[in-house]
Amino acid sequence: MTSERSITEKLRSKVRIPAGSALALGIGDDCAIYRPRGSADDLLLTTDLYVEGVHFRQDTHKPQDAGYKALARSLSDIAAMGGEPKLCLTALCAAPWTTDKWIDGFYKGLLELAEATGTLLAGGDLSRGSEFCCDVLVLGSVPRGTAMLRSTAKPGQDVYVSGSLGGSALGLETGKGKAWKKHIHPEPRLELARTLREKYRATAAMDLSDGLSLDLRRMALDSNLAVEISAPPQFPGATLAHALHGGEDYELLFTVRAGLKLPETLCGVRLTKIGRTVAGPAGLIQLEGEPLAPLGYDHFASRDAAK
Amino acid sequence: MTSERSITEKLRSKVRIPAGSALALGIGDDCAIYRPRGSADDLLLTTDLYVEGVHFRQDTHKPQDAGYKALARSLSDIAAMGGEPKLCLTALCAAPWTTDKWIDGFYKGLLELAEATGTLLAGGDLSRGSEFCCDVLVLGSVPRGTAMLRSTAKPGQDVYVSGSLGGSALGLETGKGKAWKKHIHPEPRLELARTLREKYRATAAMDLSDGLSLDLRRMALDSNLAVEISAPPQFPGATLAHALHGGEDYELLFTVRAGLKLPETLCGVRLTKIGRTVAGPAGLIQLEGEPLAPLGYDHFASRDAAK
Repeated sequence: MTSERSITEKLRSKVRIPAGSALALGIGDDCAIYRPRGSADDLLLTTDLYVEGVHFRQDTHKPQDAGYKALARSLSDIAAMGGEPKLCLTALCAAPWTTDKWIDGFYKGLLELAEATGTLLAGGDLSRGSEFCCDVLVLGSVPRGTAMLRSTAKPGQDVYVSGSLGGSALGLETGKGKAWKKHIHPEPRLELARTLREKYRATAAMDLSDGLSLDLRRMALDSNLAVEISAPPQFPGATLAHALHGGEDYELLFTVRAGLKLPETLCGVRLTKIGRTVAGPAGLIQLEGEPLAPLGYDHFASRDAAK
Repeated sequence: MTSERSITEKLRSKVRIPAGSALALGIGDDCAIYRPRGSADDLLLTTDLYVEGVHFRQDTHKPQDAGYKALARSLSDIAAMGGEPKLCLTALCAAPWTTDKWIDGFYKGLLELAEATGTLLAGGDLSRGSEFCCDVLVLGSVPRGTAMLRSTAKPGQDVYVSGSLGGSALGLETGKGKAWKKHIHPEPRLELARTLREKYRATAAMDLSDGLSLDLRRMALDSNLAVEISAPPQFPGATLAHALHGGEDYELLFTVRAGLKLPETLCGVRLTKIGRTVAGPAGLIQLEGEPLAPLGYDHFASRDAAK
């Protein structure tokens, strides 16, 4: 079956990174890592497409909210590695319905979040087409060699999530209340992630963009281990299914050495231990002893399912 | 009137780059320039959207050709600054009609050009929507402080173009022959541009993506001067209008100090002096003594015109 992962794996197999390349990490994690000659920092690069009808709807999303979220998604990838965002580029494709006012609003929302997070809008591209989309590239920075990866968890470590899960999926269903707010205004966990990297030496990390069941499986596959979890913390009103499989929470999923004492709340965000990594079949996730299917969101799996 | 430039200018006015920022150059040139802490190099960042029905058509473009050109456009921006491409990210939005085979072909074309130019595919994003688009981000590198800009021409310098112009526009009209090949397989002038930067110290440069009349006006505006030109070299079969206003030739437009001896052909590409910069109203272009209207391609101007 085609999936995002199968496409990504195929591409990864076709790219040979030469020994000594400045590309320290290529396809497969939240960001690529580039190590400039002589620099004290590693640079993180990530890009996320924000597409009308897929990631937002014109009739339910204000332009400011759309612009906010288009950037927030990429910032969340920078957070996943414990990075500090530096600049962004936007490639915007206007639709016939997008007025100048709508585009102004889109950039207003984007620039407010950019300013709040120290991300400078540095350029981009403009085009038009039959539907609106905007690709947002963010470049971030971490001290050389310190980026948190999803592939470096070891068996016998504790698995944590930040915040509570399922709020975005619930909000998408109901279109109201705090859950809707969580859906349209997710907060990239930049400060929290930096603290986990610097102070608590998290052993692996990624952001939850496609649902815990799928994202945790990706981490387990890339770290070559299995994971045993109990039910994750649920957003008020969200079902267990929302919390396990719902996408776009943009919380952090991370591991730390066994028994490390973490505060209940860090940088204003609740931390919950949901399980532990174990030696076992790579990618196997068990919830309360039962295998958990990766039912999170996959653009390409759902495309096939729709055929 | 709304134009790409008016949107860009508005955004530029809203971004304050703090003194001492690692962002050495923001919105407005072919690439943004980022200067990593302690690095011997400046990094160039550019992103270009490649949209179905705007930049290519499913019924006329093979997937390999589409993939080639999606990357070539961004590489041309790196060439414009005299840079060396290092890596690329692709954000791909699949349409209902794009089969796995088509996507394979798209990446085949893209990866062939990537390999030929030393550009490593380092990651990206996958989505789907009602039409195909792919945004390609390229990161390139130049020795610190040496990037060629479009804003640094001075009055009294010679203005050159590489190759001949109008081929891409002619090819788009006729769909055949060498002009069609020029349209679908433009060659980013990477080696030529590096040589012009290193050996001939070009005083300003940009790539010709939207047509000479519009791009030269942009260079003249940004360098705060006027330019006098004669007819540029025409691609075989192309009209003067094709050569003046046709987009997507991806040749280099550059300036050098007055009277500098340049070879007729450099790195296998013909060089032609088309005029000179003069002190005068910023952005005024005169062709054989007559003002030349900027009739090149502007996605947003044509959007308004179509209303």
